[in-house]
Amino acid sequence: MSELKRSWLESANVPDTDFPLNNLPYGVFSVDDGDMRCGVALGDRIIDATGLEAAGHLRADADADVLDAPYWNDFMELGPAAWSAYRVALTAMLAEDASDGVQDIITTYSVPMAAATLHMPFRVAEYTDFYAGRHHATNVGTMFRGAENALPPNWLHIPIGYNGRASSVVVSGTDVHRPWGQLKAPDSEAPVFAPSKRFDIELEMGAIVGQPSDRPLTVDEACEHIFGYVLLNDWSARDIQAWEYQPLGPFQAKATATTISPWIVTAEALAPFRTATPAREKPLLPHLADTTPMNHDIALSVSLNDETIAETNANELYYSAAQQLAHHTTSGCPMRAGDLLGSGTISGPEKHQRGSLLELSWGGKEPIETDSGPRSFIEDGDTLALHGSAHGNGYRIGFGHCVGTVLAAAEDPFAH
Amino acid sequence: MSELKRSWLESANVPDTDFPLNNLPYGVFSVDDGDMRCGVALGDRIIDATGLEAAGHLRADADADVLDAPYWNDFMELGPAAWSAYRVALTAMLAEDASDGVQDIITTYSVPMAAATLHMPFRVAEYTDFYAGRHHATNVGTMFRGAENALPPNWLHIPIGYNGRASSVVVSGTDVHRPWGQLKAPDSEAPVFAPSKRFDIELEMGAIVGQPSDRPLTVDEACEHIFGYVLLNDWSARDIQAWEYQPLGPFQAKATATTISPWIVTAEALAPFRTATPAREKPLLPHLADTTPMNHDIALSVSLNDETIAETNANELYYSAAQQLAHHTTSGCPMRAGDLLGSGTISGPEKHQRGSLLELSWGGKEPIETDSGPRSFIEDGDTLALHGSAHGNGYRIGFGHCVGTVLAAAEDPFAH
Repeated sequence: MSELKRSWLESANVPDTDFPLNNLPYGVFSVDDGDMRCGVALGDRIIDATGLEAAGHLRADADADVLDAPYWNDFMELGPAAWSAYRVALTAMLAEDASDGVQDIITTYSVPMAAATLHMPFRVAEYTDFYAGRHHATNVGTMFRGAENALPPNWLHIPIGYNGRASSVVVSGTDVHRPWGQLKAPDSEAPVFAPSKRFDIELEMGAIVGQPSDRPLTVDEACEHIFGYVLLNDWSARDIQAWEYQPLGPFQAKATATTISPWIVTAEALAPFRTATPAREKPLLPHLADTTPMNHDIALSVSLNDETIAETNANELYYSAAQQLAHHTTSGCPMRAGDLLGSGTISGPEKHQRGSLLELSWGGKEPIETDSGPRSFIEDGDTLALHGSAHGNGYRIGFGHCVGTVLAAAEDPFAH
Repeated sequence: MSELKRSWLESANVPDTDFPLNNLPYGVFSVDDGDMRCGVALGDRIIDATGLEAAGHLRADADADVLDAPYWNDFMELGPAAWSAYRVALTAMLAEDASDGVQDIITTYSVPMAAATLHMPFRVAEYTDFYAGRHHATNVGTMFRGAENALPPNWLHIPIGYNGRASSVVVSGTDVHRPWGQLKAPDSEAPVFAPSKRFDIELEMGAIVGQPSDRPLTVDEACEHIFGYVLLNDWSARDIQAWEYQPLGPFQAKATATTISPWIVTAEALAPFRTATPAREKPLLPHLADTTPMNHDIALSVSLNDETIAETNANELYYSAAQQLAHHTTSGCPMRAGDLLGSGTISGPEKHQRGSLLELSWGGKEPIETDSGPRSFIEDGDTLALHGSAHGNGYRIGFGHCVGTVLAAAEDPFAH
């Protein structure tokens, strides 16, 4: 098991921080009315990476500024060798044996996290949502199509997915209005236009593509192209989805908002927690087959108004993000730095391990009991949060929270 | 019927030009190794809009350059009043009563179209593909699900659609490699990874959203947000699609390429050709109901190796682009300038009016006879082109061609 790397910043060495020196996740922050800047989380502080670059103390590229913008996309474009070199250099400046001079520079170029506002850490080029959690797919399939036909025939052969809406991706803390949409109850003759009554969360991991491509990638290549990971809540209006999704898939049901955690946890920080995908029921074709372990052992949970309602692990994903990306490129589909791949909902085999209210309440038939009262789906005013951490020896790699509060639907969506 | 507006440029007044003064479509061009610049087509010339702006002869915005980039997105952001004002000013400079001095300026700031290379006219923010052609949906549904269940239950109530892949959109003239993908024949036990054998075209119109929004739009508002239109060929691998599309919709089958015509024909240029949508079989809910005619009477055709194989009309669309956009915003889905909405394949009621080879050959069961031999789907080396024009009195509004040649699949897609 990997060990804590000690920093001269004591708040980075305590066991309950999300941000030890082993982590160093990338975000975008501002203080008061200041500019949005690229930052790195360490303990209870945010290091001003934009400032360090401008002052020449730490540069990812000798010739061009890549952190002079409120997103990490330009940095990503530099590629994996530059990602590693930057991480090595930054780690050295923060490690406990750093010189006093270096410590003074970092102290100058950092702010208390408590004083900062966090923003979207990258520009989402395009957003794709997969369906790579087997327990989730089985649960949903059982509810909608019966236990006999729970998994679609393609499911064990490809990580199926659909294109989502990049413009809908928001950072943790953004309120979400309950959407309107066209709904049709099974026993109704005609649809109505009304606020969603079955608004839900989906507990997912998001993988961020850091390198462009325009040809099919092997799984190993795809793994190298992934820059990092975030927690991702794919807010879902189940009633809108039920009416719209055949035969072209989810559309407006998923377009209101998708919330991500504010810190990009790098693939390098998660490398010690790599783990194999679950056993294969059917062998994968060679272009998608597992090579080395590419899933991650990341404990995940969901809270509703600060009460934990589900706990699971990212190691439940049947397809790793690398396999998702490899499949994504099979057709020659061009990928770009900043593409975001949602994993699909991650559920475990047990009831309390289910990553959506749809599954937790079994389609509303078995409401769960919470301190806020029984819940089948989200009520107005509910705050939902995703949490995730990988656990080393005496430290953890955290993502920061992925939170959103659901506000009532607009009274008349066309009144403006 | 609307009349030709005469220009002092004689090539704009001949009946067989796509680009009379009534049109003035927006594109991006370069000459030799020069920069990519924004241009406007007139007769056999391209007017250098970037140059006119820089020289102060014609500005869309008094304070900021919006055409100093190789795309029209910044211009779109100015909004409909600015779009109209620019068109009025440009029309005046090109009309037959323009002064000699103005004519000299335009002559200076224009190039022969034959000398220019055309590029993507705008940056595609996101790409959505609808399914708004009733004959196409009925044909495909009949082939896949039988005549009794041809139209999905939602089809007559909402313009169903799915998110496509913006990175795959290319300009006319770009070669397209036959894609690889995972395929499974109905009678096979397991899938294989192989080049698509059923690669196809889809004859569509593309509507370009010119204004951002973050709330539901009425159909009238949506109509105001549409900047212009292009022809759109949504290349489709039918065998990849058949295996992947349930339950999440088309994904890799549509991600290889989507070709658009090089000129954005503005909504204003097409206004004289507005026409009603087809009769409603069921009334639409108020938020999607027709207000004024928003379809267009645009003659469309498909050619295979320069031989016409299908002819139809954009007036066959059951849902106008405005209705598509209105539906797109119902959930609060944020829209951006540069979003591209494909209409879905446009077929007419007759066999020779079908906008895809899938329909023309009835799923390959009835190959069509062409000068290039029988065709069920696309053969390597085939050149497919879409054509479109709206016809006034003595003139037409053309789009330029939307062409692509299909090249053989890579021998080994992972050899690189």
